[in-house]
Amino acid sequence: MNTLPRADILSRLQSLPDWELDEQQMFIHKTYSFRDFSEAFGFLARIALIAEAMGHHPDWSGGYRTVTIRLRTHDADGITELDFQFAERADQLLAGL
Amino acid sequence: MNTLPRADILSRLQSLPDWELDEQQMFIHKTYSFRDFSEAFGFLARIALIAEAMGHHPDWSGGYRTVTIRLRTHDADGITELDFQFAERADQLLAGL
Amino acid sequence: MNTLPRADILSRLQSLPDWELDEQQMFIHKTYSFRDFSEAFGFLARIALIAEAMGHHPDWSGGYRTVTIRLRTHDADGITELDFQFAERADQLLAGL
Amino acid sequence: MNTLPRADILSRLQSLPDWELDEQQMFIHKTYSFRDFSEAFGFLARIALIAEAMGHHPDWSGGYRTVTIRLRTHDADGITELDFQFAERADQLLAGL
Repeated sequence: MNTLPRADILSRLQSLPDWELDEQQMFIHKTYSFRDFSEAFGFLARIALIAEAMGHHPDWSGGYRTVTIRLRTHDADGITELDFQFAERADQLLAGL
Repeated sequence: MNTLPRADILSRLQSLPDWELDEQQMFIHKTYSFRDFSEAFGFLARIALIAEAMGHHPDWSGGYRTVTIRLRTHDADGITELDFQFAERADQLLAGL
Repeated sequence: MNTLPRADILSRLQSLPDWELDEQQMFIHKTYSFRDFSEAFGFLARIALIAEAMGHHPDWSGGYRTVTIRLRTHDADGITELDFQFAERADQLLAGL
Repeated sequence: MNTLPRADILSRLQSLPDWELDEQQMFIHKTYSFRDFSEAFGFLARIALIAEAMGHHPDWSGGYRTVTIRLRTHDADGITELDFQFAERADQLLAGL
């Protein structure tokens, strides 16, 4: 899978609210906020299902009420279409609620 | 913890939509339906957190789009206040969405 | 995907310890036992990942220390190769520990 | 709950393999490594149960094969007995396997 050029990445990010580009380390990331730990963990569990279904695994971090997802395609050493597909599916988890 | 008499159980169930009493095996149960497996599993993960936080563990079953919760208090050999507390917290997970 | 004939199913089950055939409802099933709820839920979470990765979702049930997995291929209305692949991956989760 | 003095923290860490003190931000942390994502997520799910059972929630981060746990007691603005109890329970998850 080919890495996307910077202009394409910035363009794609426009339709993904709160997703941002880290240009130094080249990944896209978003922090989701929740009411409590249960809600945050329920989301994280569903992110894990997406990761395993896509065979594409993000880095994540979190605490009591937040989950941060970081996406890049290690094999391609950059950001690819796969990362945007993941970001869209992650956002849809919440849109669906 | 004391088991609740049948009349109290039936009375309490009135304010818990779709929860029912199995009188033969003496437990209360409810089946939740979801749009897909991800939503069902996210719910189940949050049920697990309630169970461990309360130190009170339901029986559960499920499949692609459903999760069924069965509650009784084994130590008391019947249905107690603890089971209704659990049922309320389970319902609140969805009310909160 | 084709359903497997009964003789093949019984033959395959020989190499899958504790998996059994329910001939009436035509599914294969196994009950796993654990030391506590945490261990049981950790296993269930990993079963969920297999399900989503394979696009093949078992029925499950459980309680404080057990998880039961029931497998059949609904689309084929019987037991297929897919069910045995799932059973092997489920067993490998524990073999790996 | 009282924060532990630095000398006590260092002493306690001696019996907790691979747990370290971050003196600047005052938390203790450990990175666990696993064979794959499934094993890492199964562990994380069990950490979530500990967090909710103790009412004490760590910060965490992870990726395909690692889970990092960071512990401090926010209410006390430092490291307390609670953090060490959590660390011991987290390690026991793996000792138990």
